[in-house]
Amino acid sequence: MTLTDQEIARASTMQPISEIAKKLQINEDDLRPYGKYIAKLPLRLIDSEKMKGKKLILVTAITPTVAGEGKTTASIGLCEGLNKIGVKTAVVLREPSLGPVFGMKGGAAGGGYSQVLPMESINLHFTGDFAAVEKSHNLLAALLDNHIHQGNSLNIDPRKIVWKRVMDMNERALRDIVIGLGGHAQGVPRESGFDITAASEVMAALCLANDLVDLKDKLGNIIVAYTHDNQPVYARELKAQGAMTALLKHTIMPNLVQTIEGNAAIIHGGPFANIAQGSNSIIATKMGLSLADYVVTEAGFASDLGGEKFLDLKCQYGGLKPDLAVIVATIRALKSHAGIPFEKLKEANTDAVRKGLENLEKHIENIKHFMLCPVVAINKFATDSEEEINVVMQRCEELGVKVALSEGWEKGGEGCIDLAKTVQEVAESGKSNFTPLYNFEWPIEQKIETVARKIYGAADVEYSLKAKQQIKLFNKIGLDKVPICIAKTQYSLSDDPKLINRPIGFTIKIRAFDIAAGAGFIIPIAGNIMRMPGLPSKPAAENIDIDAEGNITGLF
Amino acid sequence: MTLTDQEIARASTMQPISEIAKKLQINEDDLRPYGKYIAKLPLRLIDSEKMKGKKLILVTAITPTVAGEGKTTASIGLCEGLNKIGVKTAVVLREPSLGPVFGMKGGAAGGGYSQVLPMESINLHFTGDFAAVEKSHNLLAALLDNHIHQGNSLNIDPRKIVWKRVMDMNERALRDIVIGLGGHAQGVPRESGFDITAASEVMAALCLANDLVDLKDKLGNIIVAYTHDNQPVYARELKAQGAMTALLKHTIMPNLVQTIEGNAAIIHGGPFANIAQGSNSIIATKMGLSLADYVVTEAGFASDLGGEKFLDLKCQYGGLKPDLAVIVATIRALKSHAGIPFEKLKEANTDAVRKGLENLEKHIENIKHFMLCPVVAINKFATDSEEEINVVMQRCEELGVKVALSEGWEKGGEGCIDLAKTVQEVAESGKSNFTPLYNFEWPIEQKIETVARKIYGAADVEYSLKAKQQIKLFNKIGLDKVPICIAKTQYSLSDDPKLINRPIGFTIKIRAFDIAAGAGFIIPIAGNIMRMPGLPSKPAAENIDIDAEGNITGLF
Repeated sequence: MTLTDQEIARASTMQPISEIAKKLQINEDDLRPYGKYIAKLPLRLIDSEKMKGKKLILVTAITPTVAGEGKTTASIGLCEGLNKIGVKTAVVLREPSLGPVFGMKGGAAGGGYSQVLPMESINLHFTGDFAAVEKSHNLLAALLDNHIHQGNSLNIDPRKIVWKRVMDMNERALRDIVIGLGGHAQGVPRESGFDITAASEVMAALCLANDLVDLKDKLGNIIVAYTHDNQPVYARELKAQGAMTALLKHTIMPNLVQTIEGNAAIIHGGPFANIAQGSNSIIATKMGLSLADYVVTEAGFASDLGGEKFLDLKCQYGGLKPDLAVIVATIRALKSHAGIPFEKLKEANTDAVRKGLENLEKHIENIKHFMLCPVVAINKFATDSEEEINVVMQRCEELGVKVALSEGWEKGGEGCIDLAKTVQEVAESGKSNFTPLYNFEWPIEQKIETVARKIYGAADVEYSLKAKQQIKLFNKIGLDKVPICIAKTQYSLSDDPKLINRPIGFTIKIRAFDIAAGAGFIIPIAGNIMRMPGLPSKPAAENIDIDAEGNITGLF
Repeated sequence: MTLTDQEIARASTMQPISEIAKKLQINEDDLRPYGKYIAKLPLRLIDSEKMKGKKLILVTAITPTVAGEGKTTASIGLCEGLNKIGVKTAVVLREPSLGPVFGMKGGAAGGGYSQVLPMESINLHFTGDFAAVEKSHNLLAALLDNHIHQGNSLNIDPRKIVWKRVMDMNERALRDIVIGLGGHAQGVPRESGFDITAASEVMAALCLANDLVDLKDKLGNIIVAYTHDNQPVYARELKAQGAMTALLKHTIMPNLVQTIEGNAAIIHGGPFANIAQGSNSIIATKMGLSLADYVVTEAGFASDLGGEKFLDLKCQYGGLKPDLAVIVATIRALKSHAGIPFEKLKEANTDAVRKGLENLEKHIENIKHFMLCPVVAINKFATDSEEEINVVMQRCEELGVKVALSEGWEKGGEGCIDLAKTVQEVAESGKSNFTPLYNFEWPIEQKIETVARKIYGAADVEYSLKAKQQIKLFNKIGLDKVPICIAKTQYSLSDDPKLINRPIGFTIKIRAFDIAAGAGFIIPIAGNIMRMPGLPSKPAAENIDIDAEGNITGLF
């Protein structure tokens, strides 16, 4: 009988977090503990001298199915594997959102024998970082509506407010709301809404900040609204940034936990991978590089979304230089790119795998565009046939790309030793020479077109009238010299979720831009993006329970 | 120059929380630390054997002014004073809400030299308890709206939903909102709103629960809505209580911190004192009684609100037996009850003090109604004249009521030694014989009228037609054998905030009832109550800042 993630997690013996810290040469006194198995790490442990010569491994994926292809599990497994072969490695991850925990997808602490612990705490609240980001974000919203109610001396046009509220919950009913009703004592009625907390610009800013002062600057630079004469209104004009940053005093510190095999895991921040950068904080990544020899980290969705943003946006802002990228592929997803329907994905079908390889090949090319060596990791499922796996292995060999199985889910680190050896070999080869795709100084259109053509494989980029006007505005107000963070579907390399596998000849349509002036990027919007998910007809929350001893069940 | 609360707090040397725990005979291994100076305490430390013979001191107050009369500061000062005279005492308090911290009133960690530490952490997030209550509450709301969106098999009438959402923020604009707009994919449009988190029934239930299983039962019994044929719909019908309780796994554990003088402070829960019970959790109070010889605890507003609810509702539910009640009075508030306007309160005026004593006398009578000995504590301000103080002292002597100065704000424990000795003398005298005012089994009207006549001094109680119909409903569905928690203004003994001092001959008008079927009480509403405050024209948040080292300023 297969054990659930939670059963495996509970059967694992955890070490006190001070023991995990010791492995990284951290004194117990430097820890800010949250219970016995979680601690926050002070920023003074980041040391640019110690970061030199360390290896940074990005884990990305092929274009995913709805279930996700197991990047987090593969990252944790790879960390275990590397430690098993004697490479001192930390895995650096994002924090889970409560939305999927109570909705459909479940937690985000890995799976099977490749998990981070304590999984219940990590999935539920953790150290309160999401709650703090939420409060910081919503304080700004409260100050903004209060400012208008109290006389609106900044001349804000209530119809041009772009700052919504956030809640870490799948909350369909809060997407579009009208607030300030009930008479003049209740403020000014206007349309608004809630996004999920992962979509907050405060989260994006936290994950790009170097320290508290930098974070405060970023939060002060958030554009919340426009005046009646179309001038941007910044959070600093509401004197919000001090209190917003005070709320994040502890949140800026990365969280240290452990893997099932007792290796170090640093978990910090959780920005969306469509409208934000989709990976853990710069601070966490640098912390990992300061404390371990190898850092394995993941970025949301595939190489065209989280991958590209990690490499262009986060690495350039953070001065990070990754050494290679692991591309996680599943036989299941390859077949689905060949058009095989969900219910038939478990049947062996080498032709379908072969056809779906076009998608993998594109992601391999994408990694090479950044002058990085790719390593393909096949996240093995019990239903995969040997022939199907061989198809992928052979193609990779033909392409001269290293490939290995990732069996961390079933076997933990033992199942990732081949992958770990491959990764080590490639990382030590020094063949990668990371180069971002674009320079922040380039014109906005050039940045967008570079990503669209090189990474998505688009034939062309089209801008709506509104988008064109916005570009003019950005050029005028100095918002053109920042990275772009294209929001588009994760289910296709294009902006149309129906175009699976490796579409060609398509046009990317930029219908508008969102702004994250505080975090430091602009968001070209290609297609519909969802900033607030909804619950399914059978929410996972219904199965979650807790007993008299505090044992939580039903989390996965 | 007078130091700010924050300067005093920062100048204080804190002991590691394990040292504070040691004083209570708690092993370090039993602590769940949150940094070096805060820890959660496991429920297994509650021991009914150890509670026997311990003294429970309620700190209440006269009818307050807008500024509050310093109950928290007096409670902390009394704890310091008792420890100074050799009585092993813990102070047990509520957790601060972020609403007042960012609004007008400031934090709730005491003041001057009577504070609990670390004050910044306690005031901002603390151990995440409010955030967890908020998430638990809002999960139920999300499940409810999702249920209706997904087909509404429970036949809920969307116009009869009584479960709103909560946010720990002064959020005027969210009081009255319309949700579910944007077309049928966004759910069912309906009117709703947000209350502040302290007003959540989840908070009330947490603070009345004995353990996780009891809490889960209470949460399952929350009434969220009514069907089209007016049947109540419970949270358990949405299968919400398991996940809601799982979110509160750590929140149910009380928080241990320290006072400036290194004594134990237990801080847990923060329900409103108008629509809920207004004092810390039963668990926290019992924890204090298990670990210390004396427990000093406060309840919100005056003896007619938090005081009465502490004694009738919380003590009966928790099987607690207080030994005396300290009534905090200020010269300032006494003068204000004589009608002296705010700007003249600093001028010496013995006649006004004498007139205002009518209010104090009523609160003394109220405590005696519970067969408790009152002790009057004069919370001394620099502007109080000796003559004014003597007026209060003399009257108390005439009434045979013990009285002492409370100078904890200025002098810490040293300023509360007289008060401590007085409290000890009265507590050890055994003259109190605590008896609640009413029995839960009494008819609803009898319970209301008893409180209104005996405690408020009302001549009569009037019920609206709606209230009368609701009483019939409660009798029918078995919601009549629960305590009442009357919601009314804190600025008057009556339900009219303009009737200061000791009004007589007035009628209490019950216009309707709210229900807290999960927490286990009903709420007769007398007058307007505010469940969601707003920010003032100059929010305190504007002055809060943080520097590169993480030092927070502007908190008070």
